[in-house]
Amino acid sequence: MTTLSGLVIRQQEPRNLEFPFERLDSYLTPVESFYIRSHFHAPGLQSDSYRLSVGGAVKNPLVLTYDELKSLPAKTVVATLECAGNSRVFLVPQKPGAQWELGAVGTAEWTGVPLAMLLDRAGLTDKACDVVLEGADRGQPAEPPKPPDPISYSRSVPLDKALEDVLIAYGMNGVDLPHDHGFPVRAIVPGHYGMASVKWLTQVLVLEEQFQGYWQTSDYAYWDEVDGIPVRRPLSEIKLKSEIARPATLEVVPKGQLYRVYGAAWGGTADIVSVELTTDGGLTWAATDFLDPIRPHAWRRWSYDWKTPDQPGRYTLMSRAKNAAGASQPDKFDERYFSYVVHHTLPIEVIVQ
Amino acid sequence: MTTLSGLVIRQQEPRNLEFPFERLDSYLTPVESFYIRSHFHAPGLQSDSYRLSVGGAVKNPLVLTYDELKSLPAKTVVATLECAGNSRVFLVPQKPGAQWELGAVGTAEWTGVPLAMLLDRAGLTDKACDVVLEGADRGQPAEPPKPPDPISYSRSVPLDKALEDVLIAYGMNGVDLPHDHGFPVRAIVPGHYGMASVKWLTQVLVLEEQFQGYWQTSDYAYWDEVDGIPVRRPLSEIKLKSEIARPATLEVVPKGQLYRVYGAAWGGTADIVSVELTTDGGLTWAATDFLDPIRPHAWRRWSYDWKTPDQPGRYTLMSRAKNAAGASQPDKFDERYFSYVVHHTLPIEVIVQ
Repeated sequence: MTTLSGLVIRQQEPRNLEFPFERLDSYLTPVESFYIRSHFHAPGLQSDSYRLSVGGAVKNPLVLTYDELKSLPAKTVVATLECAGNSRVFLVPQKPGAQWELGAVGTAEWTGVPLAMLLDRAGLTDKACDVVLEGADRGQPAEPPKPPDPISYSRSVPLDKALEDVLIAYGMNGVDLPHDHGFPVRAIVPGHYGMASVKWLTQVLVLEEQFQGYWQTSDYAYWDEVDGIPVRRPLSEIKLKSEIARPATLEVVPKGQLYRVYGAAWGGTADIVSVELTTDGGLTWAATDFLDPIRPHAWRRWSYDWKTPDQPGRYTLMSRAKNAAGASQPDKFDERYFSYVVHHTLPIEVIVQ
Repeated sequence: MTTLSGLVIRQQEPRNLEFPFERLDSYLTPVESFYIRSHFHAPGLQSDSYRLSVGGAVKNPLVLTYDELKSLPAKTVVATLECAGNSRVFLVPQKPGAQWELGAVGTAEWTGVPLAMLLDRAGLTDKACDVVLEGADRGQPAEPPKPPDPISYSRSVPLDKALEDVLIAYGMNGVDLPHDHGFPVRAIVPGHYGMASVKWLTQVLVLEEQFQGYWQTSDYAYWDEVDGIPVRRPLSEIKLKSEIARPATLEVVPKGQLYRVYGAAWGGTADIVSVELTTDGGLTWAATDFLDPIRPHAWRRWSYDWKTPDQPGRYTLMSRAKNAAGASQPDKFDERYFSYVVHHTLPIEVIVQ
């Protein structure tokens, strides 16, 4: 495996680029290989003029500088981020949006201040229930229904999640956050799809109601049900998923030899305990081996030594993750998510010759 | 004024027809002149097999027949219903949706059982907060984002409103509800846009959360704000509005004579205390006279004897309602409503000759 750098462009501006997933070979994704998902033009924030305000349903609103944030007790966590639209290109018929393949996912070590610490300093009111994270990136969103004027990117996390493990991060894999990843400060919401980890974070706004912003309702939302009646809810937790990094789609593999199939699995609300692989389109499944330990909200890479068939031809590989709660990746897409949460077993067709 | 019957078709199927508003001449709109707004094909409910279920966050779920409903103590109320999209045709540029002119509004006497009585019999749980009204009409809604499968028309009212004055109605102007108006039973939510008064009502479902159904979020919703950030909220109360019934658009009126301008005013959260009229495009305004008393959630017709100009030409008339809270009809459309809540002063151009 030659280690090439470089990302695949899905949209030039705003910048949306993905990691070529067939190059997966490390637990932590290098900063320069980490997928970039932007909704608007990246704002040019400077660390010396940066301010983070914490307000709304709090007793003592705060405004913090970059240096003040960095002087607070820091915490470092590993978290896998996946774009909610990752693998959208596998949907048939095609759905609108960036045609992400397998690489709008990555794992990094994030360093920053627990949001709980800031909320504790600000002092929540009794009725606080939802925490809006607002970025400095601003524009007119695309999908209807949309507000008439430009808005800044914002997303909320329920108060219990905000207090549990959300990080106000300034470091990524030991370096300052790169510009495209939210410099100087972003949120990291471990276990939630990437849309929750607001980049270029400038405001934390505590609400006494459930936030019904654009990216909670029009976009990044799905149709749940209450007593059989569909109701719109914001996307949140990353669903159980595995992907095959190698072989790549339509890769030519030599017949009758050992080939090391390699991939990763993540998501779900329980520990991932197995990844199975089929090399015959789903007729039979074999257990694969994990390369990484169980760690909350982080992926586990896996591999499998495949004795390739003697018979040349096209073969379809799929991987399937299972977790400790007995859940398994589904075998087809759930249309209630429209163009998001593509976490079913994805077919990778290869050419044996 | 010849009294013609007949409605203007805006959509053949599902049936959407409006009252030709220039024919306004009674306080109560005759049943056959009342505007018809349907989202899907009208279901063919029969009174003898009809059932209304009351469930969800209640201690004793109920199922009532039509006869059982009619045997309960009845209440009759006057209420003006206006479609949230009424007057959409006045928007420039044109917005999608039925091109309602002035007549998707009407006033009737509704007879039925207070929803509060049914909820009292069912016994609300402590956490009850929102009441879903579900109709028997069913289909695939048009506007994104939409659920993948057909759904029945449903809308909620906040619990306090449900307990205040919502009626489970079976009578309209003293007769059984006509088929197109929801036979055998519909909801009447006085003071709210017509979308809340669910027709062909078959289920009342009490929720312990705010209902986020399709017609609360994707459709019949608007962009409010919380601390400057847009948030999506369901439409609810009818806004303060007045309309000119006569003269009609581009009506030819004789010069230098008295012409009785005639219209109605409704909506808002306080009593309507005046309607003013301009006949010179907004330069000067004159007080008009009311024909009807103040009554909650019902319109007041008004008239004004206009001495038409001696000078032939095109003249623009507008009416403007004011209420006891000091509110006045705005002079332009609020884009946060996109294609609903068209309640600004509407110009009616006439030809004096």
